[in-house]
Amino acid sequence: MDLSLSNLLHFSSPTKTLSFPSKPLPFFTNCNPRRWCYYHPTINQNNNTPTPTVVIKDDDGFVLEDVPHLTDFLPDLPSYPNPLENSQAYAIVKNTFVNPEDVLAQQIVVQKGSPRGVHFRRAGPRERVYFKPEEVRACIVTCGGLCPGINTVIREIVCGLNIMYGVNNILGIEGGYRGFYSRNTMELYPKVVNDIHKRGGTILQTSRGGHDTNKIVDNIQDRGINQVYIIGGDGTQKGAAAIYKEVERRRLPIAVAGIPKTIDNDIAVIDKSFGFDTAVEEAQRAINAAHVEVESVENGVGIVKLMGRYSGFIAMFATLASRDVDCCLIPESPFYLEGQGGLFEFVQQRLKENGHVVIVLAEGAGQEYVSQSENATVEKDASGNKLLLDVGLWLTQKIKDHFTNVKKMPINLKYIDPTYMIRAVPSNASDNIYCTLLAQSAVHGAMAGYSGFTVGPVNSRHAYIPIGRVTEATNIVKLTDRMWARLLASTNQPTFFEQT
Amino acid sequence: MDLSLSNLLHFSSPTKTLSFPSKPLPFFTNCNPRRWCYYHPTINQNNNTPTPTVVIKDDDGFVLEDVPHLTDFLPDLPSYPNPLENSQAYAIVKNTFVNPEDVLAQQIVVQKGSPRGVHFRRAGPRERVYFKPEEVRACIVTCGGLCPGINTVIREIVCGLNIMYGVNNILGIEGGYRGFYSRNTMELYPKVVNDIHKRGGTILQTSRGGHDTNKIVDNIQDRGINQVYIIGGDGTQKGAAAIYKEVERRRLPIAVAGIPKTIDNDIAVIDKSFGFDTAVEEAQRAINAAHVEVESVENGVGIVKLMGRYSGFIAMFATLASRDVDCCLIPESPFYLEGQGGLFEFVQQRLKENGHVVIVLAEGAGQEYVSQSENATVEKDASGNKLLLDVGLWLTQKIKDHFTNVKKMPINLKYIDPTYMIRAVPSNASDNIYCTLLAQSAVHGAMAGYSGFTVGPVNSRHAYIPIGRVTEATNIVKLTDRMWARLLASTNQPTFFEQT
Amino acid sequence: MDLSLSNLLHFSSPTKTLSFPSKPLPFFTNCNPRRWCYYHPTINQNNNTPTPTVVIKDDDGFVLEDVPHLTDFLPDLPSYPNPLENSQAYAIVKNTFVNPEDVLAQQIVVQKGSPRGVHFRRAGPRERVYFKPEEVRACIVTCGGLCPGINTVIREIVCGLNIMYGVNNILGIEGGYRGFYSRNTMELYPKVVNDIHKRGGTILQTSRGGHDTNKIVDNIQDRGINQVYIIGGDGTQKGAAAIYKEVERRRLPIAVAGIPKTIDNDIAVIDKSFGFDTAVEEAQRAINAAHVEVESVENGVGIVKLMGRYSGFIAMFATLASRDVDCCLIPESPFYLEGQGGLFEFVQQRLKENGHVVIVLAEGAGQEYVSQSENATVEKDASGNKLLLDVGLWLTQKIKDHFTNVKKMPINLKYIDPTYMIRAVPSNASDNIYCTLLAQSAVHGAMAGYSGFTVGPVNSRHAYIPIGRVTEATNIVKLTDRMWARLLASTNQPTFFEQT
Amino acid sequence: MDLSLSNLLHFSSPTKTLSFPSKPLPFFTNCNPRRWCYYHPTINQNNNTPTPTVVIKDDDGFVLEDVPHLTDFLPDLPSYPNPLENSQAYAIVKNTFVNPEDVLAQQIVVQKGSPRGVHFRRAGPRERVYFKPEEVRACIVTCGGLCPGINTVIREIVCGLNIMYGVNNILGIEGGYRGFYSRNTMELYPKVVNDIHKRGGTILQTSRGGHDTNKIVDNIQDRGINQVYIIGGDGTQKGAAAIYKEVERRRLPIAVAGIPKTIDNDIAVIDKSFGFDTAVEEAQRAINAAHVEVESVENGVGIVKLMGRYSGFIAMFATLASRDVDCCLIPESPFYLEGQGGLFEFVQQRLKENGHVVIVLAEGAGQEYVSQSENATVEKDASGNKLLLDVGLWLTQKIKDHFTNVKKMPINLKYIDPTYMIRAVPSNASDNIYCTLLAQSAVHGAMAGYSGFTVGPVNSRHAYIPIGRVTEATNIVKLTDRMWARLLASTNQPTFFEQT
Repeated sequence: MDLSLSNLLHFSSPTKTLSFPSKPLPFFTNCNPRRWCYYHPTINQNNNTPTPTVVIKDDDGFVLEDVPHLTDFLPDLPSYPNPLENSQAYAIVKNTFVNPEDVLAQQIVVQKGSPRGVHFRRAGPRERVYFKPEEVRACIVTCGGLCPGINTVIREIVCGLNIMYGVNNILGIEGGYRGFYSRNTMELYPKVVNDIHKRGGTILQTSRGGHDTNKIVDNIQDRGINQVYIIGGDGTQKGAAAIYKEVERRRLPIAVAGIPKTIDNDIAVIDKSFGFDTAVEEAQRAINAAHVEVESVENGVGIVKLMGRYSGFIAMFATLASRDVDCCLIPESPFYLEGQGGLFEFVQQRLKENGHVVIVLAEGAGQEYVSQSENATVEKDASGNKLLLDVGLWLTQKIKDHFTNVKKMPINLKYIDPTYMIRAVPSNASDNIYCTLLAQSAVHGAMAGYSGFTVGPVNSRHAYIPIGRVTEATNIVKLTDRMWARLLASTNQPTFFEQT
Repeated sequence: MDLSLSNLLHFSSPTKTLSFPSKPLPFFTNCNPRRWCYYHPTINQNNNTPTPTVVIKDDDGFVLEDVPHLTDFLPDLPSYPNPLENSQAYAIVKNTFVNPEDVLAQQIVVQKGSPRGVHFRRAGPRERVYFKPEEVRACIVTCGGLCPGINTVIREIVCGLNIMYGVNNILGIEGGYRGFYSRNTMELYPKVVNDIHKRGGTILQTSRGGHDTNKIVDNIQDRGINQVYIIGGDGTQKGAAAIYKEVERRRLPIAVAGIPKTIDNDIAVIDKSFGFDTAVEEAQRAINAAHVEVESVENGVGIVKLMGRYSGFIAMFATLASRDVDCCLIPESPFYLEGQGGLFEFVQQRLKENGHVVIVLAEGAGQEYVSQSENATVEKDASGNKLLLDVGLWLTQKIKDHFTNVKKMPINLKYIDPTYMIRAVPSNASDNIYCTLLAQSAVHGAMAGYSGFTVGPVNSRHAYIPIGRVTEATNIVKLTDRMWARLLASTNQPTFFEQT
Repeated sequence: MDLSLSNLLHFSSPTKTLSFPSKPLPFFTNCNPRRWCYYHPTINQNNNTPTPTVVIKDDDGFVLEDVPHLTDFLPDLPSYPNPLENSQAYAIVKNTFVNPEDVLAQQIVVQKGSPRGVHFRRAGPRERVYFKPEEVRACIVTCGGLCPGINTVIREIVCGLNIMYGVNNILGIEGGYRGFYSRNTMELYPKVVNDIHKRGGTILQTSRGGHDTNKIVDNIQDRGINQVYIIGGDGTQKGAAAIYKEVERRRLPIAVAGIPKTIDNDIAVIDKSFGFDTAVEEAQRAINAAHVEVESVENGVGIVKLMGRYSGFIAMFATLASRDVDCCLIPESPFYLEGQGGLFEFVQQRLKENGHVVIVLAEGAGQEYVSQSENATVEKDASGNKLLLDVGLWLTQKIKDHFTNVKKMPINLKYIDPTYMIRAVPSNASDNIYCTLLAQSAVHGAMAGYSGFTVGPVNSRHAYIPIGRVTEATNIVKLTDRMWARLLASTNQPTFFEQT
Repeated sequence: MDLSLSNLLHFSSPTKTLSFPSKPLPFFTNCNPRRWCYYHPTINQNNNTPTPTVVIKDDDGFVLEDVPHLTDFLPDLPSYPNPLENSQAYAIVKNTFVNPEDVLAQQIVVQKGSPRGVHFRRAGPRERVYFKPEEVRACIVTCGGLCPGINTVIREIVCGLNIMYGVNNILGIEGGYRGFYSRNTMELYPKVVNDIHKRGGTILQTSRGGHDTNKIVDNIQDRGINQVYIIGGDGTQKGAAAIYKEVERRRLPIAVAGIPKTIDNDIAVIDKSFGFDTAVEEAQRAINAAHVEVESVENGVGIVKLMGRYSGFIAMFATLASRDVDCCLIPESPFYLEGQGGLFEFVQQRLKENGHVVIVLAEGAGQEYVSQSENATVEKDASGNKLLLDVGLWLTQKIKDHFTNVKKMPINLKYIDPTYMIRAVPSNASDNIYCTLLAQSAVHGAMAGYSGFTVGPVNSRHAYIPIGRVTEATNIVKLTDRMWARLLASTNQPTFFEQT
């Protein structure tokens, strides 16, 4: 491999790395010999990027967005043979350990001459580990809202560390980030977590916010923790990046691994987030109930509100899976109520044709309308009551008003909000396997000395992904993509392009 | 049997029949020979009881509350051998036909010398029927809110009439009572209804109100219908009684059979209403979700609103079945929020002890508080918005306000309203069997010439019950009964007896 | 109350008590004053009845089949006020304690002048208890095959004893009867059993047999146990009766309470056994699968084997609930394969009409054929292989042979045995409530000093039932009853009355 | 694009195409101008390859394995604008139509300098279609065993053709291939198929075999069918290839599209087969039941047989998802029973450690042992009874014999075969979406004039795949891959590498 063709930089926003110089810069002489290719570990200290990313690029368009490694700032950290070497389980694996040069292409749809594009480091066990198993003291923390599969991830980090690497010292931090400095911990070992994947929620409890980087890193040091597994969403992963930066600043041999969690599936780069499959499955119940209700009355209008603050993936996939939905409203696709091509017209038309209509809407859809509503503001001032900011209740009221008062047409409106019933179910089989792979990838990465990284499947293979790539952009439904067109084709709903 | 000991009267309010004379009154000479014992058919015409009941009583405290029979006002109606006589299915039944003297005791818990009490006529096929199968033209109508099992009842009326009696002429009236005069009908036969029990809702659609007795009976006559099966709740059964009265007034040979429906299980006399079991089962999902949510956060407060306008059966049984509920609030048991022994105190105590609390409340609980709320009135005046009359939202807000503003204690509140998701599921196995028996009992009763009656299990055997008994009183949870005590013992919740 | 009208006897076979003398016998002077009415406690010692029953009868046909009480052989046993007296939960119950004279009528369908018949003592808390809560040392043991709900019963005995009576000393005997002398025990308290009702199986493990009355009673004494709760089937309850007899012989103040368990629902007297509802529900999956399979092929024959060694209740109810079954074969109703009116003919006819047929058979159906099979015997001799005694496999083979070899008609045969998948599910909501009531009844009975009794619902109210009544006869499907006729009417299957 | 770099050949065995000449061969002058790049359409006629494949290759290692197109043998076939052009649904899609040059990389894990490898043509709508919608007469046929999702595929082909392209003429061929010449057909339109995705099985019925290429193509011609959609497994797709070859031979403008179906997930190239996800999910029930059963007894051994004749994917994924399995046996990994490192030893050890063991085995595992069994042969000769060839029953018997007779150690063995209960369930949400995409891809491909192709996701994007690629090799679990190592690591089961 011609390393002279590589360009290497810590970079926060990889989408802007396209015009890098094609030759190694002078400071690349001080390189990390344990990496696949050279790069300068100090460069990262100089800029104030909140999230560590290492970008490697060559002349023919091949880009690797890499993750930090403990040896970047601790070049003398000793390494050890991976205990999996002696594992019977891995004995027949052709290459027990991931080839250090294996990377995953982000781009699948290509054309014959197209550039090779962005790649990520393949996840999996490495030949050398940077922790002695008996010296590992790991901790796990869960933050943010519930999502099916959190317990499975916890279980598999514990079992992965213990069974694969022989680690016996694992702490559960209770109650999210603030558990680091204000709550007791629980000891985690395989027997304790044996059945937890069959339950929803998180046995470690969760909370929002409560992040104080310095106090957390102090606490990590005080407790002698050297592997930190952080399960949480966007904000949580930003916190993880800050913790890593502080760990790096203090030059601590601590692996910080983020496992991205969001039921909304709005994480960039990765194929889908854990729990998403289960959520789409469980959403079917609500849609089906709405359909049964409205089929059984005259002029039945069923409205189901699903999760999705900024992205409509659950609503879109639940609609595609169900086939009982007449209209799916998501944050990415603005809609309007009145006039030609508006929702009222569509509802009326479907009522005329079929006698009923089912609308699925993501919670983030139409927020602009809800917040414009004068009543909403008033209500909010008076009591902080956000009820009228609920787009489901808002839409329910609007449709009721329109048909009752304007059209003088009696309708039967049924509004269902299954959010908590979806979030709280245990993960299904497919998510269980997914969570297992996620957890094992994180464990392999941490043991291999990577730090300040997240994990996730890229085109169905697991990769180590720079935290920045999963926090700096949100995955949204692209209206110009085929999947949304499939939905429109299946519902035949209006596209709400322009109001006449 | 010594018939001279019997006293017989049409009576609307059987609870007042306690002091009947012990000898037959003169007009009993004009009796209906087809009944088990004498009674005077015209008596019913003279009083204005809205619901027909025949009360028979003897000296040792035995009371039979009987249902009307077509021969009461059509004494010359011909009868025919029951076609089941030749059915292979019934060939080995010891007594294929119900002994006309079989009655069911309402009272089970007795003491050695206690009076024998109220009895109902046992449901089942009779030796003689008052319709030639080929002349039967039946119709089925479904009214009111959804409930698991309606489709099963429809299916089994159709299959019962067709397979057991050879009836081929069955109409489905679409869209509730108003379907009699404003909508099309659908033909029902076994193949059409074969799989409908696997779906929720009602294939005949339903509506509320729309009852005009005269127009309906006109329409019944116009269509040549002679058996009317009416599936619906309290109001619907009152309508059925009115239809029967009009049928009787016009002296039409039309059997009117009511199948009582209410998901709330608040029908008097009968053991439980169809769909109730399924509803309690399905409610577990919501309770479980609430429990998972609040267990996974600090100071989690989960509130689940279940059906039950005037009675708390679903809430009570769902609480007893779940074991995850800390407090169950029902309409029958007033509660208060503030002060000693109040709900706030209890919630705070549970949060302190367990870190979380789950409250199940029936929709009718605490209505007095909700309607007192000034905001509620205002809201209602302004826009007709009844949202704030929702006791679930009201309680959610009250608890949030109390802990946030008064106690300065952050809580995590999760409110779940699974109502439509519960109503819309198909009936479970146990309800399927129950619905089958209900439907078959109704069919046997109508074929046997009873009219103006309802059916239902009394101490687990099916009986023909005067309509009045299921409409004139509502079954409620008796706080002085053992089941509520069991609930209190299991939740250890306050009894809210008095506010200090 | 006129006690001189009572006749009282310990009696093993209550069906033979019909001609008792109407006056108290001389030895009734030595009576138990704590009973509702006199009886002679020693009488039971003289005969060798294996199961204790007390029969009380009066002149007008009222019979009470009562259960033993510790004071029968320990007349000076002190009693104490029931702690429920001070319970807030029971404070509003009209009569917190069951009226000692309350009994339940076994007979529901009556006629006006019919005799009052057999009654059982009503279950529930009594005003006086014969144990001080702090001195109670209870144990629970589970025996025999799995059944949904065992864990719920365990949970509710523990919670009932602890929450209602303040008992803190409860042992779980592990692994069935043999656990008394060969295994460790586990301590049971509310927190340990809090979630076990959401899991199938039994946390106490179970086994068959292993009963040695003397060793068990020795062990009970050694451990200082004074309340024994025994969950198990027919054989287990016989064992419980023997334990009680030995306890009585040794004059020990030990309450022995049996909770009858059988998924087959073949327990006499009681309405239905716990877990039955869940089993019928779960059986729907298998029937549905068979139906889907055979509908999707030409000449599809689906065979589903369900539980039911001697009684076909599960098969019958699962068939009635499903509506997808063409033929239901149960042990109570002999069938034959060949010739007119035989199963082969019926299968062929349905294949011709519908293209498919679904047969549900109870495991005990047609055992006479299976054992007659020569191959079966051979197989059995050779290797002890009981596989061919499986009536499901036998019937599958017979039908395949008949159509392939005799009729030269290709069929698609699908055989499903869901037994273990049904037994292992957690109990559903309805069974959860049932198990709660069962457990609480047992606890109230034991605390009240009854011993050597079982509990169960009789016409939907819970009663204390002599063990003999649930072991000496097996409840079977009565072919002459209406429920079987309903099944025949719904499937239109042959009655197999006689082979031509 | 430099087309001179391309090599193009019809080729049956793409794995042998590695050393093609780098320059166009003479016969490439007669090329198909409608293809993206040149190729010689007649080449395929000369060899007897049963399955059509077009291989395109360039010098830098880029390989495209392409599918045939009607214009290959009907160069003058007219084309039309795609009606989707005017569809509102596709109006905002950036490129409504798939760029004809879009291809999908099969290889995801790459290294920086590695060759680009095999690609497939991207599925999706094309700018020009080769059928006028009003002239399309499509048919759908389903063959082979059941699998969740068949009905969804049928539904979406019908809805896709009708809603997206305006096709109104769609026939369902009933009962598999033989339905082409021996059975009636049913007309399919959106309303007929509206709810079928909620049911298991196939509304078109299925059968095995019955393939007579000439008769089928005759029949296709006779009925005027010009689009044939064939849903089925390996054998069925070979049949589809033969039909295409005959269609090509007769130069008929008929599009033949195969939708590969196998619940075993053993189809090469594609990510996973439809229904697989649902099957793994449903298998959890059986594993869970086995686990509950064996946990509740002493020395409990649970054996669950899952689908998988030649590949153990379902067993492997179900094991990974469940976490309750001690040992997973699959066809790809030979095992042995006796001696050191054998299954008996492992079972005994787990029984000693945990008291129970759960084994999941694929139906094809250990077939060599089963067939070696002498008894098996005997049984087979005598009666054609294949029962003993069932590896589940065989293993059950072997384990029972070993522990009972050899070890004199009583065990409790529970064997569960949930096969039909898994196959017959409706597809879950994730499979519903998958089936939708499959069906739409097939429809787009057929409308675009491709013929003799199959569809499926390659690295999560849908592609048109040469039939040969999905029939000529079977996807099996690679023991040298990481997924199997993950399983071994999670179960800690023996690897059975060598028998001592």
